[in-house]
Amino acid sequence: MDTARRSTWPTQGISFGGDYNPEQWPEDVWRRDVELMHEAGVDFVTVGVFSWARLQPTASTWDFEWLDRVMDLMHQGDIRVDLATATASPPPWLATAYPQMRPVDERGYRYAIGSRQTWSPSSAVYREHSLALVEKMAHRYGEHPALAMWHVSNELGCHNALCYSDDSAHAFREWLSARYIDLETLNTAWGTDFWSQRYSDWDEIVPPSVSTTFGNPTHQLDWRRFCSDALLEQYRAEKAVLNRITPDVPVTTNFMVGMGQGPALAGNMDYASWAPEQDIVSTDHYLVGPETGDAAAHHKLSFSADLTRGVAGRRPWLLMEHSTSAVNWQHINRAKVPGEMMRNSLAHMARGADGIAYFQFRASKAGAEKFHSALVPHAGEDSARWREVVELGAALRRMAPVVGSTVDARVAVLFDWASQWACEQEGHPSMAMQPMEIARRAHYGFTSAGVTCDVVPSSTDLSGYDVVVVPALYLCSDETAARIADAAEAGAQVLVTAFSGIADEDDHVRLGGYPGAFRELLGVRVEEFFPLADGEALVLDDTTVGEIWSEYLTASEDVDVLARHTQGHLRGVPALTKRTVGTGAAWYAATVPDTAGWAALADKLCAAANIDSRRDLGSDVEIVRRSAGEQSWLFVLNHGTDKVSVPASGTDLVSGAQIDGELILAAGASAVIAEAR
Amino acid sequence: MDTARRSTWPTQGISFGGDYNPEQWPEDVWRRDVELMHEAGVDFVTVGVFSWARLQPTASTWDFEWLDRVMDLMHQGDIRVDLATATASPPPWLATAYPQMRPVDERGYRYAIGSRQTWSPSSAVYREHSLALVEKMAHRYGEHPALAMWHVSNELGCHNALCYSDDSAHAFREWLSARYIDLETLNTAWGTDFWSQRYSDWDEIVPPSVSTTFGNPTHQLDWRRFCSDALLEQYRAEKAVLNRITPDVPVTTNFMVGMGQGPALAGNMDYASWAPEQDIVSTDHYLVGPETGDAAAHHKLSFSADLTRGVAGRRPWLLMEHSTSAVNWQHINRAKVPGEMMRNSLAHMARGADGIAYFQFRASKAGAEKFHSALVPHAGEDSARWREVVELGAALRRMAPVVGSTVDARVAVLFDWASQWACEQEGHPSMAMQPMEIARRAHYGFTSAGVTCDVVPSSTDLSGYDVVVVPALYLCSDETAARIADAAEAGAQVLVTAFSGIADEDDHVRLGGYPGAFRELLGVRVEEFFPLADGEALVLDDTTVGEIWSEYLTASEDVDVLARHTQGHLRGVPALTKRTVGTGAAWYAATVPDTAGWAALADKLCAAANIDSRRDLGSDVEIVRRSAGEQSWLFVLNHGTDKVSVPASGTDLVSGAQIDGELILAAGASAVIAEAR
Amino acid sequence: MDTARRSTWPTQGISFGGDYNPEQWPEDVWRRDVELMHEAGVDFVTVGVFSWARLQPTASTWDFEWLDRVMDLMHQGDIRVDLATATASPPPWLATAYPQMRPVDERGYRYAIGSRQTWSPSSAVYREHSLALVEKMAHRYGEHPALAMWHVSNELGCHNALCYSDDSAHAFREWLSARYIDLETLNTAWGTDFWSQRYSDWDEIVPPSVSTTFGNPTHQLDWRRFCSDALLEQYRAEKAVLNRITPDVPVTTNFMVGMGQGPALAGNMDYASWAPEQDIVSTDHYLVGPETGDAAAHHKLSFSADLTRGVAGRRPWLLMEHSTSAVNWQHINRAKVPGEMMRNSLAHMARGADGIAYFQFRASKAGAEKFHSALVPHAGEDSARWREVVELGAALRRMAPVVGSTVDARVAVLFDWASQWACEQEGHPSMAMQPMEIARRAHYGFTSAGVTCDVVPSSTDLSGYDVVVVPALYLCSDETAARIADAAEAGAQVLVTAFSGIADEDDHVRLGGYPGAFRELLGVRVEEFFPLADGEALVLDDTTVGEIWSEYLTASEDVDVLARHTQGHLRGVPALTKRTVGTGAAWYAATVPDTAGWAALADKLCAAANIDSRRDLGSDVEIVRRSAGEQSWLFVLNHGTDKVSVPASGTDLVSGAQIDGELILAAGASAVIAEAR
Repeated sequence: MDTARRSTWPTQGISFGGDYNPEQWPEDVWRRDVELMHEAGVDFVTVGVFSWARLQPTASTWDFEWLDRVMDLMHQGDIRVDLATATASPPPWLATAYPQMRPVDERGYRYAIGSRQTWSPSSAVYREHSLALVEKMAHRYGEHPALAMWHVSNELGCHNALCYSDDSAHAFREWLSARYIDLETLNTAWGTDFWSQRYSDWDEIVPPSVSTTFGNPTHQLDWRRFCSDALLEQYRAEKAVLNRITPDVPVTTNFMVGMGQGPALAGNMDYASWAPEQDIVSTDHYLVGPETGDAAAHHKLSFSADLTRGVAGRRPWLLMEHSTSAVNWQHINRAKVPGEMMRNSLAHMARGADGIAYFQFRASKAGAEKFHSALVPHAGEDSARWREVVELGAALRRMAPVVGSTVDARVAVLFDWASQWACEQEGHPSMAMQPMEIARRAHYGFTSAGVTCDVVPSSTDLSGYDVVVVPALYLCSDETAARIADAAEAGAQVLVTAFSGIADEDDHVRLGGYPGAFRELLGVRVEEFFPLADGEALVLDDTTVGEIWSEYLTASEDVDVLARHTQGHLRGVPALTKRTVGTGAAWYAATVPDTAGWAALADKLCAAANIDSRRDLGSDVEIVRRSAGEQSWLFVLNHGTDKVSVPASGTDLVSGAQIDGELILAAGASAVIAEAR
Repeated sequence: MDTARRSTWPTQGISFGGDYNPEQWPEDVWRRDVELMHEAGVDFVTVGVFSWARLQPTASTWDFEWLDRVMDLMHQGDIRVDLATATASPPPWLATAYPQMRPVDERGYRYAIGSRQTWSPSSAVYREHSLALVEKMAHRYGEHPALAMWHVSNELGCHNALCYSDDSAHAFREWLSARYIDLETLNTAWGTDFWSQRYSDWDEIVPPSVSTTFGNPTHQLDWRRFCSDALLEQYRAEKAVLNRITPDVPVTTNFMVGMGQGPALAGNMDYASWAPEQDIVSTDHYLVGPETGDAAAHHKLSFSADLTRGVAGRRPWLLMEHSTSAVNWQHINRAKVPGEMMRNSLAHMARGADGIAYFQFRASKAGAEKFHSALVPHAGEDSARWREVVELGAALRRMAPVVGSTVDARVAVLFDWASQWACEQEGHPSMAMQPMEIARRAHYGFTSAGVTCDVVPSSTDLSGYDVVVVPALYLCSDETAARIADAAEAGAQVLVTAFSGIADEDDHVRLGGYPGAFRELLGVRVEEFFPLADGEALVLDDTTVGEIWSEYLTASEDVDVLARHTQGHLRGVPALTKRTVGTGAAWYAATVPDTAGWAALADKLCAAANIDSRRDLGSDVEIVRRSAGEQSWLFVLNHGTDKVSVPASGTDLVSGAQIDGELILAAGASAVIAEAR
Repeated sequence: MDTARRSTWPTQGISFGGDYNPEQWPEDVWRRDVELMHEAGVDFVTVGVFSWARLQPTASTWDFEWLDRVMDLMHQGDIRVDLATATASPPPWLATAYPQMRPVDERGYRYAIGSRQTWSPSSAVYREHSLALVEKMAHRYGEHPALAMWHVSNELGCHNALCYSDDSAHAFREWLSARYIDLETLNTAWGTDFWSQRYSDWDEIVPPSVSTTFGNPTHQLDWRRFCSDALLEQYRAEKAVLNRITPDVPVTTNFMVGMGQGPALAGNMDYASWAPEQDIVSTDHYLVGPETGDAAAHHKLSFSADLTRGVAGRRPWLLMEHSTSAVNWQHINRAKVPGEMMRNSLAHMARGADGIAYFQFRASKAGAEKFHSALVPHAGEDSARWREVVELGAALRRMAPVVGSTVDARVAVLFDWASQWACEQEGHPSMAMQPMEIARRAHYGFTSAGVTCDVVPSSTDLSGYDVVVVPALYLCSDETAARIADAAEAGAQVLVTAFSGIADEDDHVRLGGYPGAFRELLGVRVEEFFPLADGEALVLDDTTVGEIWSEYLTASEDVDVLARHTQGHLRGVPALTKRTVGTGAAWYAATVPDTAGWAALADKLCAAANIDSRRDLGSDVEIVRRSAGEQSWLFVLNHGTDKVSVPASGTDLVSGAQIDGELILAAGASAVIAEAR
């Protein structure tokens, strides 16, 4: 167990609780809430996220007394508080007095107040007022016995990340000036000789607001990098105040790992750069859509959890928010069926979460999220939902020993925000080629056979892995390419997929044949891409079905061609190759396999790396092992509609049953086996 | 017959005619028009709707002479004039001189001139200039013998209802101040403690322009209420001028009942609050889309007509505009096949219209609506369309005795604009749960069996009804809930559907279990909603197929469970219940039945209420009866492609035939039987 | 051969090359480029298109030395230069110093810099600075021996055509004032009496920015006319400078004929009015989408090429840009399979192109179009793509004798931009009725049987044609209608399709029955349109399947009814008619036939006109003949997946083979037979 970590962790066992917003309720409800928290074993609450307007009702007045009473009540109830800096949502008076602090969209429209996060990341006015609030909070509650952790702002980057205001333009220029030092370097990096975009003065540079047609790709990529950094600056500024006044209190902000959607698939924040600044990495996760099959929401959950562990450097992390049931912000908000809440929560825990929290404790009766589920639903505590919450709380208490254990994975799947952002731009061979989507498919190829993957930033040390997957790592530095090659040389099975290593960090194509950064490692050379149409598929001679992508490839003599195209102008062209490199191997997939194809490929890689996989259990069973020294815990989640049998021995911390060799798990049920080793 | 009403009605028999825009044509065409009006029996025209730019060519010049000649010509031709105040579309010079009078969209864009209705409902400049015009009109034509009625503006709310200008913001604050008196009350009503939205000053409040994400639901709901009221103010202001100068001339404005589309399904005006201010309720109706089957345009027509009668307090109303054939504003504008125009017109009449008018008399040869059909088409009077118009006019003259009769319905379907507006907001469990859509399905369940429904505002006195349907009445006041309960107690079969009574008028969820306002009446308690995915369906154990919605429900012991779920986690859970209440009963449907399910449910309710239904005739036959004392008229419209047989006796006013027990009606044909009683 | 033309043509044989942007590369690459150009036979390059920021790095500094070296290098390499005026894309400093020069969208948003063409067509500032640059270019390079032609701007109208700035509004009013002279004439032409839009002062008129609902149709149509003319003014201004300084150097600008998409199907420029101002008509063409079958991209290519020849007055033209393989600006960018590049290039040549050029010579490694294909791909010259380029270059050199020959077509298909623009407006009977789409279907009816069509502006002299097709020529002047009637009278088979001749040039409907302009010629009268729903189809009694459209039509006694409706209310109504007129005939199609229907109709017309067609070869074989005096060349392109046999004799300039009666052409292959006559 990691002792250093425990000194910062807010509770002793698995933290269990959620956002608590007492300002929405009369005080007699507060007292009932504490009783209910005890009933469910809730020992961890986040308070104050949306309290600014209550704490500072006008520019010159402050009101902390109600929060004092909340904090005291929590302390009396032995409930640890993750106290928000309350800066997430400025009060109406502030944005009314200073309209320039509101964010501006890509067509110059300045967002109205009336929602949340209506502040520009680079607004000096907002910065000043928010830090004044943080200072007040730190002084008033820094010594409060209920205080366990600071919660800076909330879901930074969710709504205001891309602001095109004059303040943002100014900050963007400063960021660029720090990155490039001189303008000629920027002109070269951005390739401004194309389309006559050469800048003659820093002041000519503006955010990439809507122009007549496509913008400059590197301009846009740097903009995404800047936008992440601009919000990170706000985080750092708040943290600096907190560290100055309360140096011993840990600080976090809740990420939204893997929660991007649509055109911003991976979100706006490069969490790989944010994670090192967190005392504890925490994140929010919500299920999206009623999707089923390979795109099922719980697969995305697992991917997100594994990526969270990856950005957290494989240390335990805290699930700051998820939902007991439906959310409110989709077109149709599916509710969770019995057992599903526990499976979701335990899936996060299986993949490294040592704290399980929700938005929010008590469902609001008014406001924008009143139909978001909660621990205490609108129906009150006489409800199946609340009884499931109480049941989960009891199970989590039995799992306290799991705290601090690690998730051991021998497979790494690489993911980088910069590559993703570059591929979200228009102008690529196929907009269907999205790194996060390819990484998800790769991840599922392994996890559907019970093989756990770390999803890691490409800057990660790869020396410990037996399999390394490089899925559409479009942008790739020389350093990263070398580290990946080194991993193969040192014995790993390295699989590179199509559209990896195409460009350098400035989004300049590596010439001479794709994939420039990996041509030598893989022993292949691609002359031209042949993206497939929507719905189009191809078949290789090993029966692999490919989607989205094909390409014209030649392979060196020292390359084993594992599969070739069977159709059209590519008939006979290699599509899946393997080259022995040092004590490892470098594999290449020149298309995007479908689910069965990825399963077969994952199995081949596992076989080559001597990794046991359990494809026989079927993809509805999720299996992950956490361990700490001699101890280990096997998480088994049955997402299917039939009971399953899984080899296991030990004590099931969910049911309390002793398992001797065979775990029979009912449809929808969960088990956490404290294994006898 | 309602004598008071007749004193205000513009013509003696069924008013027949349409919008007449002579300014588009040379004067020799005017004279030909009068001849044609006589040929068709047109006795009612609306003049001047778009004449402002002709009447006041510049800020300082007026030209009424051409309109004098039109009015005189109408008078000489014995054609009654519904004279517009001409304020609907301000002339270019006005909006050029005062740009601030143009409406502003939700992103601050100020609409350009070049179309129509380019004025902000709250613009002081527009108000002043429009009232000056009304004053001129009233003085000049108030005594004109052709004048039958004033037509204030035109289709108020069609394009400019939601204006986010500074003028509108100011008026919104005044409206809020009148509603809430003090700011604390507003903060409570809006639930501003959520997301730190608490207002400290009235001036911080703005219209709900686009913000970073979801807005405050009550803010948005009040905005919709205000926008309806703001245009009602314009109506009242024009009416006040007219009433002052011409106290004896009736005043109306043409509604667009049931013509909302897409995200604004029910339109922007709360016609329940507008109707009491009309001397005669009039409305426009157009068929939308080439939809077929249960969504057929003529079903929506019937719903709209029944709702118009509902807001008109069951008094006869006037169909101010519909079309002889195609409109011009859809992607593909289907034209009406032979017989369809007559069926549409008679469907309105069957459901309470005592006047049948069209846009417009003569098809324009230029301008935005030149491809909108008319009584006189581009082809001229030598055309099948014109001959159908003449035929319809003759039939309508034979139906003069129907005037003033009533439509007797024993079934009430409740509809409220506020509930609809609330459900058009994002953030609900399922955006597919739209009150107007549920009301339409309910309505069709009855009308498809020849059972006529009043579609009424929820404020309506329900004491006369044998069946009361409460379809997704999401917002519900205590008073309305009590009135509905009283109806059951007094003997009515009351059917409440899912998502009714969820919130109070401030959109605060009623806690303790859904549906809060009806839990006691129904004897059921819903713990959690489980909305269905798009295209998903469920089956109950009585074979009812449900769509859109399911929920976890428990029923009291005094409740009869009529049907239960058969699948998944809800297997065995009640979905259709009935509780005896007083001399009536309270039914609950916990899902949205499909067409067959609604038919079965409507039949059950009719059976319980001893209402005869004619399911055997098939859904293509539309049957409605109007009556006045001893007299009655049976409207039979055959929308199908086969002839039908309907029991009837009397004189068919369409064909002139005597019917003795059996009416054989050809495919597409219409009959209006003056029944022998 | 046209001697006059040759004096202006940039090269001796078929010009072969493309855009060359050396500023993106170090100078050692330039020297390698010249070697590669020689290897491929490239003799024609366009230089300087996006060089403004390089040539004028700041307002007060100029740098031509690098371009001097490029020009010298080209001259030394015997490569002819089409030198751009470099005005297409202004440098950042200019649009930063003068924000008012940037274009404004229809909601008042002023486009940011960061892309290309960020200038308003009517900006005085842009005009002044661009002409200063042109003057510099003309003086510096007017005498340079490499200079073959001036290339004004680039793809004028592609991104900035519709600008709603104040400058544009001012220019629009001037244009209107010149067109209408007095305001009353404008009010009449625009039909401003509808919707109270009558203007009392020129200054009230603005561009048709977004208003509350539909705008005025004639206002919008004149706006499209003005926007084309506004950019033509920029072209003329640049050309005037060039002609003054270098009177002997030919001038062109590259059109984008047939490259419009979506709502602007035919693009924004009326090339019929632009073509007379070109010394050589040049155009760009790119394949759009992965469409197959009748909508196959190569059919659209052929249509576009035939339309280019039509606007060029049937003189040879120059294909300034197309692509060797994929483009970069679609969602998914399909690459060209082996043989496809040659087929595409030869299809253009078959249809009149005497120059074959590409964007661009060397694929960029950075910037917005780095994934656009090029002659030298990212993979370099060791690539199949480059080898195909070299092969094509060699084939083109063998085809030098084709230069100056003509394409002889006996069929004319009419197309007009004004009709197209009118039909792109909302408010029509069916938005699916698009003239360019109907023209494409008609064109394909003939070309799929090897019958070549000229696609010509309706102002074209029709006296030489045996078949004239008038496809949905919605707007039609009296003069055009008379010329079409004269063609029939003089012996042509004239086919008019539905929705032709409906309105005059002011978009006023011709009354008395459709199609007003052709009623007498055709002997038919349409009373009402009955557009079909999406996906709906009808069947005539000659088995023709019709889509999109039907109508109620009566025919005179002297008309032969060739086919009648078989269904619904139109059963028995004529749908395809023919009337003998003079020595020709006037046919009418009252629906839009599907592909088979068009084929049958084209065959009937060819039979009536004694034109040989080759329907037997199948639609995958494209056949076109060019001729010059006694010589002729038969272009045969096999787009299919099977080999084909085509009757031919002569020398195949592609393969070098002698063909004696039967050409066997492999799947995907091309042949150009120098025919022995």
